Amino acid sequence: MKAHLLSGTSIKQIEIVKVKDSTCFCYTDDVSVEEPLEIRIIYGLADKKESKNISVTMRTPGNDPELAVGFLFTEGIITGNEQIKAIYSPDKACARNSENSIIVELNESFVPELMKVERNFYTTSSCGVCGKASIESIKTVSIFKEHKKQNTEVSLEVLYQLSEKLQSFQNNFSITGGIHASGLFDLEGNLLALREDVGRHNALDKLIGYALSANMLPLDNTILLLSGRASFELIQKAAMAGITTVAAIGAPSSLAIELAKEFDMTLLGFLRNNRFNMYHCGSHFKIENLL
Amino acid sequence: MKAHLLSGTSIKQIEIVKVKDSTCFCYTDDVSVEEPLEIRIIYGLADKKESKNISVTMRTPGNDPELAVGFLFTEGIITGNEQIKAIYSPDKACARNSENSIIVELNESFVPELMKVERNFYTTSSCGVCGKASIESIKTVSIFKEHKKQNTEVSLEVLYQLSEKLQSFQNNFSITGGIHASGLFDLEGNLLALREDVGRHNALDKLIGYALSANMLPLDNTILLLSGRASFELIQKAAMAGITTVAAIGAPSSLAIELAKEFDMTLLGFLRNNRFNMYHCGSHFKIENLL
Repeated sequence: MKAHLLSGTSIKQIEIVKVKDSTCFCYTDDVSVEEPLEIRIIYGLADKKESKNISVTMRTPGNDPELAVGFLFTEGIITGNEQIKAIYSPDKACARNSENSIIVELNESFVPELMKVERNFYTTSSCGVCGKASIESIKTVSIFKEHKKQNTEVSLEVLYQLSEKLQSFQNNFSITGGIHASGLFDLEGNLLALREDVGRHNALDKLIGYALSANMLPLDNTILLLSGRASFELIQKAAMAGITTVAAIGAPSSLAIELAKEFDMTLLGFLRNNRFNMYHCGSHFKIENLL
Repeated sequence: MKAHLLSGTSIKQIEIVKVKDSTCFCYTDDVSVEEPLEIRIIYGLADKKESKNISVTMRTPGNDPELAVGFLFTEGIITGNEQIKAIYSPDKACARNSENSIIVELNESFVPELMKVERNFYTTSSCGVCGKASIESIKTVSIFKEHKKQNTEVSLEVLYQLSEKLQSFQNNFSITGGIHASGLFDLEGNLLALREDVGRHNALDKLIGYALSANMLPLDNTILLLSGRASFELIQKAAMAGITTVAAIGAPSSLAIELAKEFDMTLLGFLRNNRFNMYHCGSHFKIENLL
């Protein structure tokens, strides 16, 4: 079981006042840590290295290299693990708070297409700003769009167990009640990996960064379970990783559904208490025992 | 009651398959619409106007002018309503999908400090990237930091009613189960305004944009209720609007609590079922009837 739970730096103890009905008492509470992480890339030839700040994201500390790699991959800045030369924090002598900065150094032979990704998935020159344009630009960037999907057959029993399994493995949520999770399961419902973060996009980037580093992509014979709602951004990241089956414990948005249809991804929502909604059934997907 | 509910374009009906236990049936479901919105500003003198794309955010259509104004204000790009000359969509002849673009034209006498805000609240040159730096930079930008706070006295009865009131007014949530809300209440628990969005930061920007346009700022004698968790970003926006009492139905993050302490804002979490946690009690804040 490769579920990787966050270390002690992801939870902080603080003194609070608990109020119930008309009484109050002091209490030591656990809260999820949120801190900024600066993701920077270094690229170019040895005699002409360039450094660029790609993003500052508010994240829960832990699995930062995975987060950086996953973010670069799901944003289309890198397309494979082999493009990465090294991942490290800045020299402590140069920067305070080096634990909140991470550098991904790319191989000299690889030049990232930064201009392309700066358009940020949302607009194309032909169409202006709209959901359709957002979907079209992901199609252009995704390396798994034409990948032949494996048949995915899963039983209702397995599906109905997923939410509870995610919660039972989600250590930090049970402690703080305030953290998102992305879980990756095989078709028998075994948990392959789990990542948590105050930002749901970060939890998924950590998960995909882990899978990329472990050479598991495309993730087309797995089920991705999201602890909350399914927004466009999360389905976009899943599509980039070649995930073909996504289930959410919460609701999907309209654009998340449109993207799932366009990529022929199965999208389930409200998966809890022996029920779910199927917003799109991928042509590769089949549920056993369904009447 | 100034609660402003989203129009028909914020909800979309789609055909889905509902599965319960081992049976399934077709169903027409309502989902929350998510579409990109490009926010652009035009500034400078009449003979030398400049146009700049400030952000593309994934939002639920509705109250877009408020969202644009609220975003510009909470990001520190504008500091008052009087700096705005006009708000409009691009000419339909020039851009398709003009409903997904909005232009805020600033008065000629006002020059926005774009370089300052491009550092994006998260870093300062002296300290590197860390939560403390993020808080310090908000202090620099906030116009209400030194504002003398009014005393806020609220009864437990009022507090305990807020979550249910928010939900009862939150039309779209009850329809789709998938949308965030920010509600503004007075100290008697009357709803002053409510905004919904698939992005919780957008819901709050819409609310603050509305309040700015209505000359209600600073909002220091109100209670802001968040339908979900309280992240740093939301407390930051609240601080910018001079809000001094924030309650969340979900959990706060560590950095949200630190920011609330630094701004002496009252921060309550898990406000539901006649209970809550008090993460910080502002020096201006008092609860009646608390034993």
